[in-house]
Amino acid sequence: MFRTTLPLRFAHCDPAGIAYYPRYFELCDAAIEDWTAAVLGITRREMHVDRGLGLPTVTLTADFAVPSHLGDMLDFTVNVTRVGRSSVDLNVDIDCACERRFSVRYTQVLTDLAEGTSRPWPPELHERLIKESA
Amino acid sequence: MFRTTLPLRFAHCDPAGIAYYPRYFELCDAAIEDWTAAVLGITRREMHVDRGLGLPTVTLTADFAVPSHLGDMLDFTVNVTRVGRSSVDLNVDIDCACERRFSVRYTQVLTDLAEGTSRPWPPELHERLIKESA
Amino acid sequence: MFRTTLPLRFAHCDPAGIAYYPRYFELCDAAIEDWTAAVLGITRREMHVDRGLGLPTVTLTADFAVPSHLGDMLDFTVNVTRVGRSSVDLNVDIDCACERRFSVRYTQVLTDLAEGTSRPWPPELHERLIKESA
Amino acid sequence: MFRTTLPLRFAHCDPAGIAYYPRYFELCDAAIEDWTAAVLGITRREMHVDRGLGLPTVTLTADFAVPSHLGDMLDFTVNVTRVGRSSVDLNVDIDCACERRFSVRYTQVLTDLAEGTSRPWPPELHERLIKESA
Repeated sequence: MFRTTLPLRFAHCDPAGIAYYPRYFELCDAAIEDWTAAVLGITRREMHVDRGLGLPTVTLTADFAVPSHLGDMLDFTVNVTRVGRSSVDLNVDIDCACERRFSVRYTQVLTDLAEGTSRPWPPELHERLIKESA
Repeated sequence: MFRTTLPLRFAHCDPAGIAYYPRYFELCDAAIEDWTAAVLGITRREMHVDRGLGLPTVTLTADFAVPSHLGDMLDFTVNVTRVGRSSVDLNVDIDCACERRFSVRYTQVLTDLAEGTSRPWPPELHERLIKESA
Repeated sequence: MFRTTLPLRFAHCDPAGIAYYPRYFELCDAAIEDWTAAVLGITRREMHVDRGLGLPTVTLTADFAVPSHLGDMLDFTVNVTRVGRSSVDLNVDIDCACERRFSVRYTQVLTDLAEGTSRPWPPELHERLIKESA
Repeated sequence: MFRTTLPLRFAHCDPAGIAYYPRYFELCDAAIEDWTAAVLGITRREMHVDRGLGLPTVTLTADFAVPSHLGDMLDFTVNVTRVGRSSVDLNVDIDCACERRFSVRYTQVLTDLAEGTSRPWPPELHERLIKESA
């Protein structure tokens, strides 16, 4: 379980004064970016630039329970729920002051950016994911 | 069935040179914005500013089949798949040159922006949605 | 003189219901993207992917005269005001129903993306810019 | 002088792998949002929602010196350079590891959101700005 906190900024809010959902996904992706560095042990920069790997989303499902407002401090909890040969399922729960705001379930696939094809997890990353999903 | 075409711009692409999925949702929302004016017969401005109504997303599911690249012309097809008392299910398919790129299924709920509560569809909007979903 | 029209969408508006200026720059960049294809005669995709060239901004100055609201149709007029050996000055005026909303003056430099260094304009592009600036 | 540090995320980078300038302005605005809370002593939420005030940009000038890359930690330094009756000039310098990346000079005007007209600074905010600009 990995947790990070990000503020809901002016830039994320729509004319109704609440979070605009495409920006919610940008925030979720920021949380996964931080999770990558903390849990997988490599930054996205290393992953992309040095190793030529990406982790694109294949499917996602999002449930929006309660709207968020400008200035809310959002807690993102990232859980690994399944590890495949070259894929990973992530569950991201977003809370504010212990109230569930929304949840996103992702399937992402490790991809060779030059080839555009899936790549099996390198052993050290696979091990960390398995450990994290336990 | 409503169709609109939007270009995948530089602004929508990530360091891998392909569409960044939070921007995909921004494009989908632009397509739904155009659908609102064309099919519901009221612009979002009228809906939000004049009537104080919003159409926030309650759930969405997205499947990303094939990545899109800078300059791709994306065709968005919006279908009404279910009409509730105050909700609507939309299916948005996104193609490029007849190749399916991704699909998003939405449940959205008509909401009174001041109260933050759901609102039944006004009869004329409900009628248009029912006709569209036929 | 090149002109293109882009709508101010829900995605571009802030909690005050008016255009959020970072999105204004995204819209200006979309107008310049369209200008690139129409006036320089090469798309950004060709420029970036095929030729390995970019046109990053070195300086910009923006004057915001009148706020824009959700649903406004914005006319972007792009003028070439100076052509250097590897640079170009662009003036972008943004109007709605003949009312000036904002203006941006840019200096951009043709850049080799791999090297990160400036590149003189290829003769055919230089010629088109000179003709455009006349 | 107010300083805050924000990461250059995947979401901020373009297909050339460097910061996309409209996102730079979003980051600058986040830094000013943090400055507002820390220096003016009121959050943007209080300013917008409770007091009905905004601080829109009237003019800005930006100089981009050196490109930033995915994962760079950017230091934003916000200085008050002039205080008017209802306006403020801000200078934001952005550095990474002590290298100047870009700078933005803003003129912003305190605005009554309902009326759309400028408002003189309330005495306690004016005092804080004068102290900060000293």
